[in-house]
Amino acid sequence: MEPNRLKEHLKIRPLEVADFGRGYLTLLSQLTKVGDVSKEAFQKQFEKMRSSGSYYVTVIEDCNTNKVVGTATLFTEYKMVHNARKRGRVEDVVVDDEYRGQKLGNVLIETLKKLAVHEDCYKLTLDCNDEMIAWYNRFGFIVEPGRSNFLTIRLES
Amino acid sequence: MEPNRLKEHLKIRPLEVADFGRGYLTLLSQLTKVGDVSKEAFQKQFEKMRSSGSYYVTVIEDCNTNKVVGTATLFTEYKMVHNARKRGRVEDVVVDDEYRGQKLGNVLIETLKKLAVHEDCYKLTLDCNDEMIAWYNRFGFIVEPGRSNFLTIRLES
Repeated sequence: MEPNRLKEHLKIRPLEVADFGRGYLTLLSQLTKVGDVSKEAFQKQFEKMRSSGSYYVTVIEDCNTNKVVGTATLFTEYKMVHNARKRGRVEDVVVDDEYRGQKLGNVLIETLKKLAVHEDCYKLTLDCNDEMIAWYNRFGFIVEPGRSNFLTIRLES
Repeated sequence: MEPNRLKEHLKIRPLEVADFGRGYLTLLSQLTKVGDVSKEAFQKQFEKMRSSGSYYVTVIEDCNTNKVVGTATLFTEYKMVHNARKRGRVEDVVVDDEYRGQKLGNVLIETLKKLAVHEDCYKLTLDCNDEMIAWYNRFGFIVEPGRSNFLTIRLES
């Protein structure tokens, strides 16, 4: 695969508190239910994520419009198994509808893969909809036979 | 489902540093590769997990033998989506071969479910082998159609 490059006005970087005002939550709402998250709630959650050192919330900003147009998160989990290394997870991947077809998703996933290697994760996993399997396959993610079941309980009241 | 009760000599509690000497890692090796984890590495990882406040590593000890005979971990992940609530994950569930059939697994999973509700998680998820699906179904975990794919990249060198 050829290296993915972003156009000059697009910048990939970690999430900042100021991204609350750059449409970060509106972008996430293209992926799933966000609900009513105040600036204070955002800042509080941001600080918890930052101080834990386990979240690489990565965004792509369009510097022409000062809007966040793509995001993906690497989350790393401490394990006792596998030599007390870390397990990585890819979460909350979304590219703005108007920026599809520019390979922004590729840049995000390749970036998270590099971060996971840098963090010495022994594996990187994700869960996704049926439609996304083929896309993730391109990056080397596979459904491992016999051991790839994903189960959920919804706890929302 | 009737409430699950542990026999008097069995105690459910959070993981302690001293569980290194009570066979905790030997128990985990019945589930997956543990590798060579020194007492120091164990303590270091334990402290990272403890200080993050996101890990409920739960164990069952047999007080007659002072051995850890069952374990399961609830891990909670901070989210911006879903009203900046938390997502829970069930990880590293194992009951000692010699203690199977005593419903220790039920006690562990029901305990983690209660903890996830207490932590205000909006959902609780897990990934598992084919053979375990029916067992997890009993507790209400389901494979949600169209959105339950689990993909992996192994990063081990």
